[in-house]
Amino acid sequence: MNYRYSERLGTFSSSAVREILKLTQGDSILSFAGGLPAEEHFPVQAISDAFARVMEQGTKALQYGLTEGYLPLRQALCRRMEKKHVRVTPDDMLITTGSQQAIDLLTRIYIDPGDIILVERPTYLSALQVFRSYGAVPISVNGDKDGLDLADLEAKLKQYNPKMIYVIPTFSNPAGRAWSEERRRGVLELCHRHNTLILEDDPYGELKFGDASVEYRSLFSLDKHPQGSCVVYTSTFSKTVAPGLRTGWVLADPGIIAGMARAKQAADLQSSSLDQQTLHQLLEHFDLDAHIEFVRKEYEERKNLLISLLEQYAWPGVTWEEPKGGMFIWLHLPEGIDSGALLKIAVAEGAAFVPGVSFFAEEPELNTLRMNFTYNDTETTIEGMKRLDRALQSVLVKG
Amino acid sequence: MNYRYSERLGTFSSSAVREILKLTQGDSILSFAGGLPAEEHFPVQAISDAFARVMEQGTKALQYGLTEGYLPLRQALCRRMEKKHVRVTPDDMLITTGSQQAIDLLTRIYIDPGDIILVERPTYLSALQVFRSYGAVPISVNGDKDGLDLADLEAKLKQYNPKMIYVIPTFSNPAGRAWSEERRRGVLELCHRHNTLILEDDPYGELKFGDASVEYRSLFSLDKHPQGSCVVYTSTFSKTVAPGLRTGWVLADPGIIAGMARAKQAADLQSSSLDQQTLHQLLEHFDLDAHIEFVRKEYEERKNLLISLLEQYAWPGVTWEEPKGGMFIWLHLPEGIDSGALLKIAVAEGAAFVPGVSFFAEEPELNTLRMNFTYNDTETTIEGMKRLDRALQSVLVKG
Repeated sequence: MNYRYSERLGTFSSSAVREILKLTQGDSILSFAGGLPAEEHFPVQAISDAFARVMEQGTKALQYGLTEGYLPLRQALCRRMEKKHVRVTPDDMLITTGSQQAIDLLTRIYIDPGDIILVERPTYLSALQVFRSYGAVPISVNGDKDGLDLADLEAKLKQYNPKMIYVIPTFSNPAGRAWSEERRRGVLELCHRHNTLILEDDPYGELKFGDASVEYRSLFSLDKHPQGSCVVYTSTFSKTVAPGLRTGWVLADPGIIAGMARAKQAADLQSSSLDQQTLHQLLEHFDLDAHIEFVRKEYEERKNLLISLLEQYAWPGVTWEEPKGGMFIWLHLPEGIDSGALLKIAVAEGAAFVPGVSFFAEEPELNTLRMNFTYNDTETTIEGMKRLDRALQSVLVKG
Repeated sequence: MNYRYSERLGTFSSSAVREILKLTQGDSILSFAGGLPAEEHFPVQAISDAFARVMEQGTKALQYGLTEGYLPLRQALCRRMEKKHVRVTPDDMLITTGSQQAIDLLTRIYIDPGDIILVERPTYLSALQVFRSYGAVPISVNGDKDGLDLADLEAKLKQYNPKMIYVIPTFSNPAGRAWSEERRRGVLELCHRHNTLILEDDPYGELKFGDASVEYRSLFSLDKHPQGSCVVYTSTFSKTVAPGLRTGWVLADPGIIAGMARAKQAADLQSSSLDQQTLHQLLEHFDLDAHIEFVRKEYEERKNLLISLLEQYAWPGVTWEEPKGGMFIWLHLPEGIDSGALLKIAVAEGAAFVPGVSFFAEEPELNTLRMNFTYNDTETTIEGMKRLDRALQSVLVKG
């Protein structure tokens, strides 16, 4: 038969992340591409113990549960969020299949075709894909290492009357930036004034490098506006426990949570009961904070290694900002070098990264790329950088 | 702030299943409402053993995986499907977060606002919700105990030029019907002729009652048309292993699978790695067929119990078809009795069911309701029916 696909299908054509994950499946490519945590540090024994506790409690873990999520997990998450200056109840929370689903569900209930969504420049590529799939038009706001440019934000709020802005204020993907508190408060104030919802994506907030005394407050925790928060906050266990458990959460006004829960019912009824209950037992019986501190230190060392290698290679015209946290370094190549073309050469040499083009809402800078530093151990990082060096040298020579 | 929700949010207002699941959370209500399997028969030990095997293999189970699903699970499912006259490869398959997500993703890539989707009368309420959320207009086709009425189907294919029809040919939800092979072949032939895609939802196909020698072939297995199958088939482990693992699968032309995978990447990146790998180990080391046969017999006994109680109570004017398989009995009350009003009385008496209204694409028969017979044990079923009897007597007396 002749399939009659929807117009929407075309919006999914950019499947960069998916192709990236495919690249990492083989052993021959040393990949700096995916946003993968270091799997050798997953708390396997603690997860096994947590699973055993769930199974001891009988069969309920395997039955259908509430769309909103397993209540004791939501309660435990509320207690965790209190340490981060956030006071919420389970009614302000929805459990999702990773924070990717939070982005999808909020867009589904909040965005009509043609709506503008302001985003950072650059920003998370799979968020752009979701927005476009619902017919939204993402437009980027300029920024620097301290966060969004408030003047440009105000101008674009006035010009476009966007329904929503999407931001990663704490260790952005791909740039590794952390917004200053002044910028955070400025963005909140402007969005309240223009009645614009903020989707705050916070997958990396616990992976902070440098001075431990510096605290980055979430926009959600700073928003004290009485008439309903203008912030929808999402985070995930994917970077702090393990991505395979596919469990994230959203905090928002109860009305928004109720709408997202209705959309989730249609999307998949609920997330895995088993994963949610395993995570609940993990939170109750495992020192997750100590584990996160261990992983955080390890990632800081890996970041330092990659930075030192970048400094050693000192490729002419290649620049970067040192990430304040998270999992990525964002590189600028000399003007005129297309990182997409470079990727093909790199893969032939046995290394991979993500070309920058997919991280831009519009007018992509083709001479940019994203490197992950959390997945690979020292040896792999050194060997991968050798391969990247060979790829880059061939391009730089040509240039 | 004043939230500016999308128009789509309104399409999610019918949250019947969700409210039903809430009703079943307390202990005071004996519920015939949800489509819940008997949790005392979940293979807890086998799942624990499978989980232990996954953990023995190291940390990969906890890492991100392919959007399409864990390859060894897809391979094992291909082998299982061979016993059902289906020859497919992993490229014809996508793993989903339950078959609910399969309905959602196919609709997302195949349906534009205003498209017509033909459905059975009555049909699965959460499928209607998905279709409406993407702006589709579901229209029902008449049928009887042998399946869709082919003349009505042909007339509506001509009249509406629908992109898709959605059907549950084997033990339908809510009516418990099994289509004859003649009807199955007739529907295939008509849909090919009119270039209409068939979404075949098969969550209950393994739960067959009565003569064991009777075989109900899936539409997917019967479709031998050379130019791409017109059938997209979905099934799930929710009814045969456990719903809490949230794992379903889709079989379709590789082009459709690729489109659905791109949509899934945006929706949630992938389903739980842990659940998928646990199910793979379960398929490799557990006699799932013997387990299904055990559960099937148990459900047939529970169906027989409920039928015998319905016969004993013999409420005047209340009729039903004996289900050929699955999990539900569909009741017609006397004309003029609204099952929604009855539910309120029933809940006050401590029992619940699903009013029929939500199962109709249009012109609902308000005097219908759905009862589940798989979840409750003998004692609970007997007590629940006593409570329903009190509720019904009060309505029948008034009538």
